[in-house]
Amino acid sequence: MISAISTQAPPTRARHVLCVGAAVFDTLFRVRVMPTGQGKVLPYDMQQIAEGMAASAAFAVARLGGKASLWGAVGDDETGERIVADLAGSGIDILGVHRVAGARSAVSTILIDDDGERLIIPFYDPRLHQAVYPVTADDVAAFDAVLVDVRWPELALQALLAANKAGIPAVLDGDVASDGVIERLAPAATHIVFSQPAAECLAGTPDPVLIVRRLKQRFSHAFVSATFGNRGCYWFNDERACVCHLEAPRIAAIDTLAAGDIFHGTFALMLCEGMAIEDVMRSASMAAAIKCLTFGGRMGAPDGAELDDALRNWPARAVDITCCSK
Amino acid sequence: MISAISTQAPPTRARHVLCVGAAVFDTLFRVRVMPTGQGKVLPYDMQQIAEGMAASAAFAVARLGGKASLWGAVGDDETGERIVADLAGSGIDILGVHRVAGARSAVSTILIDDDGERLIIPFYDPRLHQAVYPVTADDVAAFDAVLVDVRWPELALQALLAANKAGIPAVLDGDVASDGVIERLAPAATHIVFSQPAAECLAGTPDPVLIVRRLKQRFSHAFVSATFGNRGCYWFNDERACVCHLEAPRIAAIDTLAAGDIFHGTFALMLCEGMAIEDVMRSASMAAAIKCLTFGGRMGAPDGAELDDALRNWPARAVDITCCSK
Repeated sequence: MISAISTQAPPTRARHVLCVGAAVFDTLFRVRVMPTGQGKVLPYDMQQIAEGMAASAAFAVARLGGKASLWGAVGDDETGERIVADLAGSGIDILGVHRVAGARSAVSTILIDDDGERLIIPFYDPRLHQAVYPVTADDVAAFDAVLVDVRWPELALQALLAANKAGIPAVLDGDVASDGVIERLAPAATHIVFSQPAAECLAGTPDPVLIVRRLKQRFSHAFVSATFGNRGCYWFNDERACVCHLEAPRIAAIDTLAAGDIFHGTFALMLCEGMAIEDVMRSASMAAAIKCLTFGGRMGAPDGAELDDALRNWPARAVDITCCSK
Repeated sequence: MISAISTQAPPTRARHVLCVGAAVFDTLFRVRVMPTGQGKVLPYDMQQIAEGMAASAAFAVARLGGKASLWGAVGDDETGERIVADLAGSGIDILGVHRVAGARSAVSTILIDDDGERLIIPFYDPRLHQAVYPVTADDVAAFDAVLVDVRWPELALQALLAANKAGIPAVLDGDVASDGVIERLAPAATHIVFSQPAAECLAGTPDPVLIVRRLKQRFSHAFVSATFGNRGCYWFNDERACVCHLEAPRIAAIDTLAAGDIFHGTFALMLCEGMAIEDVMRSASMAAAIKCLTFGGRMGAPDGAELDDALRNWPARAVDITCCSK
């Protein structure tokens, strides 16, 4: 019924997205007011969940009816077992998650206040992502797209290069990373979605249009876009050689944690379903917005019916930015 | 060999302390500098451990060679299983820990900065400590002392009253609590060890000597004491009707989390071993100080040999405060 009014028929088989990168055990606290130093702050809600950039993106794929596989690493500890069990229970194939002997699993605490502001305290054991595994085109041939984050750069680079060889989309979640990581990964990506802080830092300007122009100049081989939270998203339209802007759905955000990850997962899935790029961006924007309506990180990601319903009632379309700022 | 120079021979059998109250799954982060608002802070060390006031006190008892039982509550969730397994693995009898259907286990995140300052974010599900269980003298007759914290006031009160009937020490960890909790529990305690913030709040003054005098006036039936971190501890000497002060061992504290709990557990164990009160306070002070030398909450609690060694090399004795401040 829904497909009847969608822009295209759904694919005949579920698309399969490989997500490469972070798997973290998160503790989320909702607080009225953010603490400003030492002392005690009493949260009024709490949730514990396995997520992380790649893991949350994989969840978005699975929720939307796609197939999602995760390549990542956890420690050989109880938290690692819990991460793997939680993600597997969420419909993600975790056979590619390594258990690293002697390493501790990644854990993170996130405080979310009533203004939607966040304090994030992530701990990554340096031993977790040291190993280098070769990835061949055969290893990724079964997937319809590869999406990598910046958490395990060596593996991400291998996966992007293999995706190129296999002729499938190689998507980079261009978030804030250690020095040089974006510069190493971006050349191997066919599609890059930058986060606002990473994009501003790389482009050296806060102006979204200028950011996209500059990043497109730098990574001209790829589809270049950046997300700006409630200010929407921007991308470079290669056909018309201009920057496009899509406003964000207007919502009262309760929890923006993992919104970017849900965007990326939806982006990768819709991309390999063959959707036009504007519709890919509309879907990803709306999925991320819906996520923000629910406390609990990735848990708010919509299923296909929810997303289609919301898209049907959202008239916003992309706008070409014709100003010639350089 | 150690017993030969101790103040008294060790008891012929291990003393058994019942601890009643908090059991929490803690995530500890070490950070260089405490965050002052929203954003991201990257910890350089992390540890996850089951503790909480009563649970950490029980651990202190077990580490020192005593027998420790914990009465408390966890949710019927994975975190609850992990709390129980961790505490059982630490030598604590957890048969009295309830698993509350439909409740979430207590979890807490603690940031510790390089100045030793702490930010604590504890979450307690209100459903965790609602049940009221009657406790008889028979239920506590097998124990040599009962120690309660303020986390499960209904159960703590029952346990203190039963301890009175059974004729064993009824020790109250007088920490900051909801309105009226201390006032309800203190009359049933034979020994009270207040924390500095709770003592200051109850006595309405920051002066330790005045605090102890005022709290002794209010709870004249009990042994009254208060701990003041690196300023040592104070108590009311009933024989000489004066306040005594014992300075704190001079240490470079790395992690003061659970120091009070280790104090309380050591206090209760030494008390029911029949030690003189000054030696009880010396032992408790030193055990708490040793704990502070190790990152990891309760994990730094000493065993009996460590504690005896340290006490032998610590000449500090209690000093009577003869000033007549009122």
